[in-house]
Amino acid sequence: MARVFLIGAGPGDPELLTLKAARLLGAAEVVLHDSLVDPRILEAAPRARLIDVGKRCGRHSASQQEICRLLVEEALAGHVVVRLKGGDPMVFGRATEEMEALRAHGIGFEVVPGVTAATAAAATLQVSLTRRGVSRSLHFLAGHGAEDGLPAHDWVALTRAGGTLVVYMGGKTLPGLAAHFIEAGMAADMPAVAVEDASLETQAVMRGTIASLPSLVEAAAPRGPLLVLIGPAMRDETVLDAYLAAGV
Amino acid sequence: MARVFLIGAGPGDPELLTLKAARLLGAAEVVLHDSLVDPRILEAAPRARLIDVGKRCGRHSASQQEICRLLVEEALAGHVVVRLKGGDPMVFGRATEEMEALRAHGIGFEVVPGVTAATAAAATLQVSLTRRGVSRSLHFLAGHGAEDGLPAHDWVALTRAGGTLVVYMGGKTLPGLAAHFIEAGMAADMPAVAVEDASLETQAVMRGTIASLPSLVEAAAPRGPLLVLIGPAMRDETVLDAYLAAGV
Repeated sequence: MARVFLIGAGPGDPELLTLKAARLLGAAEVVLHDSLVDPRILEAAPRARLIDVGKRCGRHSASQQEICRLLVEEALAGHVVVRLKGGDPMVFGRATEEMEALRAHGIGFEVVPGVTAATAAAATLQVSLTRRGVSRSLHFLAGHGAEDGLPAHDWVALTRAGGTLVVYMGGKTLPGLAAHFIEAGMAADMPAVAVEDASLETQAVMRGTIASLPSLVEAAAPRGPLLVLIGPAMRDETVLDAYLAAGV
Repeated sequence: MARVFLIGAGPGDPELLTLKAARLLGAAEVVLHDSLVDPRILEAAPRARLIDVGKRCGRHSASQQEICRLLVEEALAGHVVVRLKGGDPMVFGRATEEMEALRAHGIGFEVVPGVTAATAAAATLQVSLTRRGVSRSLHFLAGHGAEDGLPAHDWVALTRAGGTLVVYMGGKTLPGLAAHFIEAGMAADMPAVAVEDASLETQAVMRGTIASLPSLVEAAAPRGPLLVLIGPAMRDETVLDAYLAAGV
């Protein structure tokens, strides 16, 4: 039976925790959590020793190694350990390193999925990410790679694939990202929306186009993690109606 | 204040419902639900009149119109109405038509996100969908389009985009889908996994390659909805280690 649980804490709103996550947090003896996890979510783990292992921006391999070491150490000490990650552990959650460390020590574990930020943002925007006739595919991209630069995405392929693009943690790299997409052939007036703190009371929405969004975001100077949604499905309803009527 | 709630029921496991979904189901007076929603989830709505509006395979526009009509009718009658959808409402959930019907009648509504099947399947497989160094992007595709045929995806672009591909409801169209990807240049030995009933006790996993999976799935003859995951991140751990060591 697993005594280590890699759990998705969801997008931020404590009520978007799953029943399973809440139950396991209630039974946890140790919780290793990201800094992005809302303090109210940690209240679901009243018995647990809480260890903040996250960094708000950027992660260094040393700190990832340290997380793996702690996870293994606490599990081998016989504790019921929860590793709590923002969103879903399997979507840009760096879970592989931790699962490998546990496997290497023969420690059984279970992964509990969570609501990922993209769908929480779509819920708030009240826009389907796969709107029929507009978007038949949905693409999640890492917004930063090694040393906080942009990952080497195939921008032409991503632009041609169509559908809705969602960039995770793409705040800092947004100007470069937008330039890559426009250079790859994306229309400069492609709708683009940035959502800060999706699902939380502090949520903020910045609307523009792939060309205008970088300066809008720079002016708004958001402090929380940013999700960027790009594609025809992000058009305002009224604009979208005309767009669909035109049969584009 | 919203009295209509479009709620994601999650992938199947009743414990993967969110706390918010459970609270709202408890207060619901009417629940319009898909057939795919597990009966145990409906137990969270003891006060509600339950209306099954879903079909297991295929949806006709007439039935979608009927759902919209019912939703509006129950809301205008003053009931607290929950529209419960499998997975997340904004990911291949046909939410747009229902939101438009509510807007057209000036009915306020709220969307509550849920855990989508892709991350639930990844949790069970214990494989990250965005494994560092292997997959920097994640792509969700509709597995069927109009009249249950394949949607007109840009197969070359999707193949070139790399990362992990997840096909929703792609069981019936898997042979055509695999042929398109191979024709588009995908390696015939690209790892591919089909997951039936992700997160439920009845879950089954079929592992192969993009070339072999269609016949493996045909032989297994799954009855539940199928999720197909394709990409280098789906390699078995031992194979993946060699793959990474080779620096491919």
